[in-house]
Order: sequence, then C-alpha cells, then structure tokens
Amino acid sequence: MVLMGRWEPDAPARLQRAAFELCSAQGYDQTTVAEIAARAGLTERTFFRHFADKREALFQGGDAFRTTIADAVLAAPTMASALEASTIGIKAGAALFPAREIVRRRQELIESNYELQERELIKLHSVATSIGEALRQRGVPGNFAELAAETSVTVLRVSLARWVGSRVEQAFNTHVDEVMDEFRRLATVRLNDT
Amino acid sequence: MVLMGRWEPDAPARLQRAAFELCSAQGYDQTTVAEIAARAGLTERTFFRHFADKREALFQGGDAFRTTIADAVLAAPTMASALEASTIGIKAGAALFPAREIVRRRQELIESNYELQERELIKLHSVATSIGEALRQRGVPGNFAELAAETSVTVLRVSLARWVGSRVEQAFNTHVDEVMDEFRRLATVRLNDT
Repeated sequence: MVLMGRWEPDAPARLQRAAFELCSAQGYDQTTVAEIAARAGLTERTFFRHFADKREALFQGGDAFRTTIADAVLAAPTMASALEASTIGIKAGAALFPAREIVRRRQELIESNYELQERELIKLHSVATSIGEALRQRGVPGNFAELAAETSVTVLRVSLARWVGSRVEQAFNTHVDEVMDEFRRLATVRLNDT
Repeated sequence: MVLMGRWEPDAPARLQRAAFELCSAQGYDQTTVAEIAARAGLTERTFFRHFADKREALFQGGDAFRTTIADAVLAAPTMASALEASTIGIKAGAALFPAREIVRRRQELIESNYELQERELIKLHSVATSIGEALRQRGVPGNFAELAAETSVTVLRVSLARWVGSRVEQAFNTHVDEVMDEFRRLATVRLNDT
C-alpha cells in the first residue's frame, strides 16, 4: 500500500473503483458511502468533497467520455455524413471503455437498480446533446443534427448491449459497424419477414 | 362541485390534474402531496393509495399510452416495414395526448426538474421496450425489432419537441411524417452542408 499525500490526487478514481466493486458484489442498496470510503482508504468527508452521493461515484468519467466524442465529431472528415460523423465520435469515446468484463458487470449493476437506470439514461441523453452541438458547429442544420445525434446514441446503446452480451469476443467497434449496417436496412425489414 | 362517492372512482385523474396544475404554477419542488390532495378534494391517504409519490402522479397514464402503441403495432398492415409499423404505433398513442398547450406546459415542467427528466426518460425507454416486443410478435428479428423500436422513440421525442415548440399550429402526426422523412435522408446529410 502506497502512502498517500494529503491531497489524494487520485481519490476520485479510487472511490469510483471502490464504489463499483462493493455495489457490484453486495448490491447498490446494501452499500453505504462509509463502506466505499473505507475500502478506498479515505474518509467520508473526502468522498463528499468529490461526489454528491454514491450514485455519482458510479458515473465518474462521463465528462471525459462526452468531450472525447464531441472532439472526434468536430474533427471528422468533411466528406462524412452527419450520422457517420456521430459514429466516428462514438467509436472515439469507446476507446475510454475499460475491459469488456468490467463493462458487462457495470451494465448488470445498472440494470439491477431503477435509480442507476435513470442516471444512465440521463448520461446518454447528455451524450446526444453534446453530439448534436458538435454537429451544429460543423454546419449541420439543427433538425438533422438532433436526429443524427439521437440516432447515434441508439447505435451506442445497442452496440454496447451486444458487445457485453455476446458469447463471442468481438471488438465494440465491429458491433457499431454491424448496427449501422442494420440501421441502413431498417426501412426495408418487413413484418413477418422471419 | 359534484359530491363524490366514498370510492372516488376518478381519484387518480383528479390527483393527476391537481399535481400538474400546482407543480406547473408554483414549481415541482415547492409542491407537497398535502397540497395536491387538498386541491383534488381528497386526503393524503387517498393520494398514497394511488401513487408512491408526487412524481408518479405526474406520470399517470403511461400504461395506457404504451398499450395503445403496442396494440397498433400488433395490428399494423403486413406490408409495413418494422419502422413504419412502429410509427403507426406512435401515431395511435398520440391520440391520447391532451391539447398542445397542456403538453407544452408538461414538457416545460419536466425540463425544469432533473427527477422529472429521469422519469420521462424511463417512460420513453419502456415505450421502446413495448414496441420492440410487439415487433418481435409480428415476426421481426430481435435485433431489427430493437433498433426500429428505439428509432421510433427518437422520432416520438423529436416530433413532440417540435409540436410543442413551433409557432405554427401543425398536427403532431404531420411532425411525425416530417421527422420520418428527414430520417430517411439522414445518411445523405453531409457536414458543412448549410
């Protein structure tokens, strides 16, 4: 164990890891802030200096994810369509994902609790807003920017679910490509086409 | 004022209306369950027989909306695509909307509060799940069913925002048609196309 300086520069990351491990192992409702702080070797006071509550500790990192995505959209090649640019953003954001097994456990934890589902949906909503703003900065008209952004977040969500849920290990970005491909064929899939 | 019988058969609707009017006029955080019950001419006890908290009173009617949409998807013509069938569902659900001015005030109320935004996103998520299930019952493969359902909820959300936000009065379903049309052109809208 390394002795930590007074300012605990990596405190947020340690608290986040402790929160995730405890909630994942024993349940979200059963985990207290006191336990999370203790496991991270920090005080409750330090916890509350960084997070409003235990839920927020589990959603640490959302800003970096959003910024990475928006930056990639802003840097997308001019020849890309609005939807392609959004997808380039999603893929760039995915570079921040931890290992698939961690993401899988995280998604299970979120699915287990209504409060966490709500928080996750708000996070995805804010990702869509960021992508929409980036697209507008790239000159995409507002209505198309909003649609493309919302659509790419659907692609993100569906790709994520397939990535963590599939038996076969396949890169997240390959799932994104497959979902985009299905997306293009969506208008042609008929009822009773089985 | 009509005297109500002991069982107050329309209590949920009265409580919902009272909750909406009070929260809309004086703010969600500033409104108590006691005030809502009093305005509806009912007791707090009656309130809690119908709703877990004041937030739920504002989201009364979600089940009927979801069921109406799913039923319309199940009854959609076989020649419809998965996405068209979902849109038929959205339009059927929209028949339950109150007047545009009410919906506009409701959306403003939701936007004003984080808890209400979360609840609204959960509701839309459950609408997507219902549409997905209906599409699967109609023989649409699971991955396409999920994508079409999520996409149609994006169409619902965007159409709703335009309907309540536009200066010109235009039917909700016309907004849906416009959004669907933009949707088909989404892949062709390029960056810097202004």
